[in-house]
Amino acid sequence: MSELSVNHLLGIKYLKEQDIQLIFETADHFKEVINRSIKKVPSLRDITIANVFFENSTRTKLSFELAEKRLSADVINFSAGQSSVKKGETLIDTVNNILAMKVDMVVMRHPNPGAGIFLSKHVKASIVNAGDGAHEHPTQALLDSYSIREKLGDVAGKNVVIVGDILHSRVALSNIFALKLQGANVKVCGPKTLLPKYIESLGVGVETNLKKALEWCDVANMLRIQNERLDISYFPTTREYTQQYGVNKKLLQSLDKEIVIMHPGPINRGVEITSDVADSKQSIILNQVENGVAIRMAVIYLLASKIK
Amino acid sequence: MSELSVNHLLGIKYLKEQDIQLIFETADHFKEVINRSIKKVPSLRDITIANVFFENSTRTKLSFELAEKRLSADVINFSAGQSSVKKGETLIDTVNNILAMKVDMVVMRHPNPGAGIFLSKHVKASIVNAGDGAHEHPTQALLDSYSIREKLGDVAGKNVVIVGDILHSRVALSNIFALKLQGANVKVCGPKTLLPKYIESLGVGVETNLKKALEWCDVANMLRIQNERLDISYFPTTREYTQQYGVNKKLLQSLDKEIVIMHPGPINRGVEITSDVADSKQSIILNQVENGVAIRMAVIYLLASKIK
Amino acid sequence: MSELSVNHLLGIKYLKEQDIQLIFETADHFKEVINRSIKKVPSLRDITIANVFFENSTRTKLSFELAEKRLSADVINFSAGQSSVKKGETLIDTVNNILAMKVDMVVMRHPNPGAGIFLSKHVKASIVNAGDGAHEHPTQALLDSYSIREKLGDVAGKNVVIVGDILHSRVALSNIFALKLQGANVKVCGPKTLLPKYIESLGVGVETNLKKALEWCDVANMLRIQNERLDISYFPTTREYTQQYGVNKKLLQSLDKEIVIMHPGPINRGVEITSDVADSKQSIILNQVENGVAIRMAVIYLLASKIK
Repeated sequence: MSELSVNHLLGIKYLKEQDIQLIFETADHFKEVINRSIKKVPSLRDITIANVFFENSTRTKLSFELAEKRLSADVINFSAGQSSVKKGETLIDTVNNILAMKVDMVVMRHPNPGAGIFLSKHVKASIVNAGDGAHEHPTQALLDSYSIREKLGDVAGKNVVIVGDILHSRVALSNIFALKLQGANVKVCGPKTLLPKYIESLGVGVETNLKKALEWCDVANMLRIQNERLDISYFPTTREYTQQYGVNKKLLQSLDKEIVIMHPGPINRGVEITSDVADSKQSIILNQVENGVAIRMAVIYLLASKIK
Repeated sequence: MSELSVNHLLGIKYLKEQDIQLIFETADHFKEVINRSIKKVPSLRDITIANVFFENSTRTKLSFELAEKRLSADVINFSAGQSSVKKGETLIDTVNNILAMKVDMVVMRHPNPGAGIFLSKHVKASIVNAGDGAHEHPTQALLDSYSIREKLGDVAGKNVVIVGDILHSRVALSNIFALKLQGANVKVCGPKTLLPKYIESLGVGVETNLKKALEWCDVANMLRIQNERLDISYFPTTREYTQQYGVNKKLLQSLDKEIVIMHPGPINRGVEITSDVADSKQSIILNQVENGVAIRMAVIYLLASKIK
Repeated sequence: MSELSVNHLLGIKYLKEQDIQLIFETADHFKEVINRSIKKVPSLRDITIANVFFENSTRTKLSFELAEKRLSADVINFSAGQSSVKKGETLIDTVNNILAMKVDMVVMRHPNPGAGIFLSKHVKASIVNAGDGAHEHPTQALLDSYSIREKLGDVAGKNVVIVGDILHSRVALSNIFALKLQGANVKVCGPKTLLPKYIESLGVGVETNLKKALEWCDVANMLRIQNERLDISYFPTTREYTQQYGVNKKLLQSLDKEIVIMHPGPINRGVEITSDVADSKQSIILNQVENGVAIRMAVIYLLASKIK
């Protein structure tokens, strides 16, 4: 296969297994180019990309911006904070205005689940979902799987546990779709109040005991705990969460093998993960960040080649 | 004529009719280039332009930025929110500081009417007014006339009505100047509380009945109603405004001809204009946005050629 | 000497006298290039620089950005306001995340004194301190000395007085280090409440009488008075400050020589300096701003050449 089966990246749910392989092979190429200190490839010199962020996201936005610039695309940034959205303009009007200025691709983060899907049906541009509410965050899941593949050679057949607030996490949902599609075995682990009721319908195991989960897995993806979600009566407190679901060196050493530790960032050191774990050789957290740029270059490059 | 009669674009008031024609012909050229998917022309490779915005304006700023980048100019952005203006610095000091860094042109939005004119007398740089309080917004008026010319072949002799809050609108004032200069017939339409007392001295007709105004015109430019201006005792409420001055499909179908509908955006759908009108074939709203980039490229290109 | 003795610019304190001379000679070259209207040199085409600002600073950030762009570096901007710092991420995690995206140099402003030094020990990138709390602001001191050298031919042997709030000023401290290193004679002048107790240990004279200080000096560097620091019981009020430590034309004319007036900006006209002084021929305030870009180009260029 030499091109994607989709015209947008709205969610992992809409991809085929071959799409993921094509993205990974393209990312391999870009990563190799970057590592030779060639910072820019002239691939998308005639493409204009708008980064439209209705929610703050320094990390993801920076990664997309770098990916776009390294492909030599023209980049414009649109943040809702300074925007006409506050003046009551509809999402479609806002984006159509941007597109009327001859923009070819929109990378969008939006607080509403499905915002990208809705948009893709109403505007003429390639849409990349950079996070839509608690729904999907497909490039994060792609870079996560890509990092597992880089570390362990393959994703298929691996046991991966996602630990934390699964209920509110777009990272968890996209990861589950991506890992299942590639043939990994997936479990989620966290307090019951933070697990969605439909979780088993996704073909995912549930394990509320962290130690058991870690004993089972090859890879543990530790989600960030958002403090504002905890410390509410029916949730565990932050302290209780750390005691039951935080990973520390002692816990890892009690296992009979060395598992791979991942985290989508930003890290709450001492909450979901201790510093000695985050900075250990088992951790591939910074590789994830590095791979994020190559994965986003690949996604943008492959979608752009479908525009022309 | 091969160059502008002015060194700054401070307002339509300071332009000659030939200036407008030269800007339009230059915009024709740039629009053709963009439509051939050549996203960048190397015209202004040695020019640095500062976008200095003392008021938020995503839409206008984005359009200027794209125009500047497509001319290959170097662009720096300065927003008052993050600026030393808050520290009590004067406008001239702020701009002189920017200019000392070898900036050739300043595109400025400022809440005070006349800020650009004042500045142009005290600093050494070409100034483009991107909106100064309720005074002028010259590039908006230029792109509006350019869009009429594109749709109807000519501006001269056409009947244009501007509907809405004329009193607080820089878009209205710049449009009146531009349309009159090109030989159009202009009326304004809106509740008396939103019409300035001096309006007839500008050679403009007044019509408070929307239906009559629409029957007379070839083009209706529907201004955005700012909710914060309405719902005050002596103004109409938003609901009353929509009933008397909102344009809907039924009203348009009751006319014996098809008029052109314009709007400077962002649209308040259901207030000054209904969705079926905004999205109809009569509407050239997105063409206005598209033409905005070409017009701004033309203005910047022509002013820059006077610097060298 | 053809390269800097340091791999970071953390403070003037860590430079040798030859480092300063090398920076000045390199800046001479870049200034000449800019003055020939060659806006861009292709020197750093393969370098990516991140401007990481944990404090607002339009002026300094703009100057760095222009310097970076004129060296053809790729530039990414990271502001703490929109960042994950608010989410409790550590400084090292934030910066390591940026670096994982293949960034070569970090220009950082941070409210904590020593933040850059701390960072330089924990991350793999060249760090440029763009202001760390009340500690140092080395590029400001370099451009100040460079401007004195440009105006008076040399810094060595000159009498320089720094007037104002020395206690809270990183500009003052960096200037003292830079001026002493180059062999200038330095005094500070201001109300006792705004002078640090350790000041004489830096080899600097203290003069609380402004007229006497001006009679002694060749150059007066007038620091900006931050109103929020004054008007507290044990400080002078703004009005008292202006009466005792503000410079006006009459005071300058009462001296038997013409001294050079400097100010790091933004100016509080009428507080620490009157308009007729700020805009006089004695003032080199705008030259400082202009030289800032050349100095920053030189610093970045020289540090980048140590990376490769």
